[in-house]
Amino acid sequence: MTTVGILGGGQLARMLALSGAPLGLRFRVLDTVADACAGQFAPLIVGDYRDESALTEFASQVDVATFDFENVPAESAQWLSARIPVFPNPRALGIAQDRLAEKTLFRELGIPVPDFADVPDRAALDAAVAAIGTPCILKTRRLGYDGKGQFRIKTPGDVEAAWDALGAQAATVGLILEGFVPFDRELSVVAVRGRDGEFRAWPLTENWHVDGVLSASLAPARVDADMAEHAYAHARALADALDYVGVFALELFCRDGVLLANELAPRVHNSGHWTIEGSETSQFQNHLRAVLGLPLGDTRMVGHACMLNWIGTMPDASGVLREAGGHWHDYGKEPRAGRKVGHATLRAETPAELAEALARVGAALGREAQVSPVVAVLAS
Amino acid sequence: MTTVGILGGGQLARMLALSGAPLGLRFRVLDTVADACAGQFAPLIVGDYRDESALTEFASQVDVATFDFENVPAESAQWLSARIPVFPNPRALGIAQDRLAEKTLFRELGIPVPDFADVPDRAALDAAVAAIGTPCILKTRRLGYDGKGQFRIKTPGDVEAAWDALGAQAATVGLILEGFVPFDRELSVVAVRGRDGEFRAWPLTENWHVDGVLSASLAPARVDADMAEHAYAHARALADALDYVGVFALELFCRDGVLLANELAPRVHNSGHWTIEGSETSQFQNHLRAVLGLPLGDTRMVGHACMLNWIGTMPDASGVLREAGGHWHDYGKEPRAGRKVGHATLRAETPAELAEALARVGAALGREAQVSPVVAVLAS
Repeated sequence: MTTVGILGGGQLARMLALSGAPLGLRFRVLDTVADACAGQFAPLIVGDYRDESALTEFASQVDVATFDFENVPAESAQWLSARIPVFPNPRALGIAQDRLAEKTLFRELGIPVPDFADVPDRAALDAAVAAIGTPCILKTRRLGYDGKGQFRIKTPGDVEAAWDALGAQAATVGLILEGFVPFDRELSVVAVRGRDGEFRAWPLTENWHVDGVLSASLAPARVDADMAEHAYAHARALADALDYVGVFALELFCRDGVLLANELAPRVHNSGHWTIEGSETSQFQNHLRAVLGLPLGDTRMVGHACMLNWIGTMPDASGVLREAGGHWHDYGKEPRAGRKVGHATLRAETPAELAEALARVGAALGREAQVSPVVAVLAS
Repeated sequence: MTTVGILGGGQLARMLALSGAPLGLRFRVLDTVADACAGQFAPLIVGDYRDESALTEFASQVDVATFDFENVPAESAQWLSARIPVFPNPRALGIAQDRLAEKTLFRELGIPVPDFADVPDRAALDAAVAAIGTPCILKTRRLGYDGKGQFRIKTPGDVEAAWDALGAQAATVGLILEGFVPFDRELSVVAVRGRDGEFRAWPLTENWHVDGVLSASLAPARVDADMAEHAYAHARALADALDYVGVFALELFCRDGVLLANELAPRVHNSGHWTIEGSETSQFQNHLRAVLGLPLGDTRMVGHACMLNWIGTMPDASGVLREAGGHWHDYGKEPRAGRKVGHATLRAETPAELAEALARVGAALGREAQVSPVVAVLAS
């Protein structure tokens, strides 16, 4: 009997536990709050990620540990990895936590990235804005999440306000200036690497964000084979360089047919939720297979799939459940503004059928604006 | 927030809970043993099904109740149904618990059945053997499970031994004599009926038993449209007559192209486990949708599927996990002779690919005998 420990008890941990149960696994989840939604289906330890007694209890109950979010304190991951196997390894986690280290690695590996510069102080900011040009974005190096800790500099006149907003963090979590990419499309590669280095990727996903939060994902993304090969090669180079074990997502901007790496998410990813029904093996099960050293599952698609995120409150389910390919995912969370509370996946045999189902669901749920960009791509 | 109560905490309850989590449901399971495997993923109440304090605790925590096995005492189901909604209804459960009532209903509905007769006493047994002929099988009317409580009468000379073995039960659970059907094939219809009477069935499944326990299931079964229509019509007539709500299986014998009803299983069924990966909607999720009055999900197949049961001990998983369409289900149970401890489902786009995968899995796991009848059917 193998018990998998998960640091973080949100929807990703919940879906990991549900997906790992058929492998005969048991789970323990460590989270700071007692109503963490993974706790509805896996025993929950409530404690701070830096609390050594909570970590000790957690480590004593599990055979291997993994994460449901990337901002686990690096020292906690290190502490755990001295006692039990931890995947992905703390170095990979540490690099993904630091925008500067991440983008530096992208560049070292020959993966195109938007312009960026370290911003240790105000003078460096002025120099970076001059070098990169406007518009650009000042970001904290660490602990950014879904658009927080960012300030957009539209003209050089905004530099003062940007420094006022974030400058104090230059000495703590650090700052980075990034060139703004007027991208045509956002794509992601969700991929998995096994303990033995085996690498598999799901078909590319096209993503739409609203207010910095993922709104919809479509797979397979409509890209030519050459672009897909580039994306897979980038993901593989990154995973190999980090000796990464498990599932991760590489978020990409696409501009004029060129891919630029935006961010590495060192965990199962919202843009891979469609794999539960839309692929032979879900990202959740393949993450666990990788972490446990089991053979990786097939990442081929079964039809075409679109994932719609539910933010804040759950819509009425019936409009989705009535669809032949409609699948509902309620994370069992309390509603709260901006919170990811669930998603739906629509699966169909053809793009045309998927577009029709999306249009019906958009109308039934009053979510026309959410589905329309996906419908437009499917119709194009 | 809706909490579903399940009487019985075995693998069926476990798979119901895993399948219902994405609907935002919570679960409570009542079982007589503390290590019931559903308890690994849903809160477990340990108590006897006749213990009113356990039933009271259970009823106070759930919004609706259902079953993971059919031999829940009828009075317990009645007691619960006076307090909370219970699906399927206790009458359906009661009829399915009694082979005589079940077969009488089949006959009333015009569903062909093997010859049968009530055996209230020894004289009735003699008369029934004379009328039905040998070979035939003496069975207890109630509480039979997987071949227990049965005695095969090969010649009239076996009647004495049959009565010695089972006669004492004539006055308690009752006895029935059934004609032996030298069937060519065993089939099952797994179907679901909603609260509003909507009926959906999955494609027919062909089943193979070893020592009275299911060994393998193949879907879709190779039957002509006419036979499939008959099977669906029988299942629908039965469900309508019982005002049945939820998933059930109708087990059928096929002899010379004619279907004979064998048994009604008033619950999700082992021969429907392939629906988890092989159908748009699994039997587990559709059972919950029905019980909760939600729209039923699509029962179409996605490819071709074969389920292999693991009895007693789990084989090594890797031979299945290496298959592109290989899916593993370990129920988290302690090994024990004759116990259903897990299953695997192989999914493929074509019958030929499925046959090849089965042959590889049979060789890798040393289960050639288990897969060979399925491979033979796929090759025919």
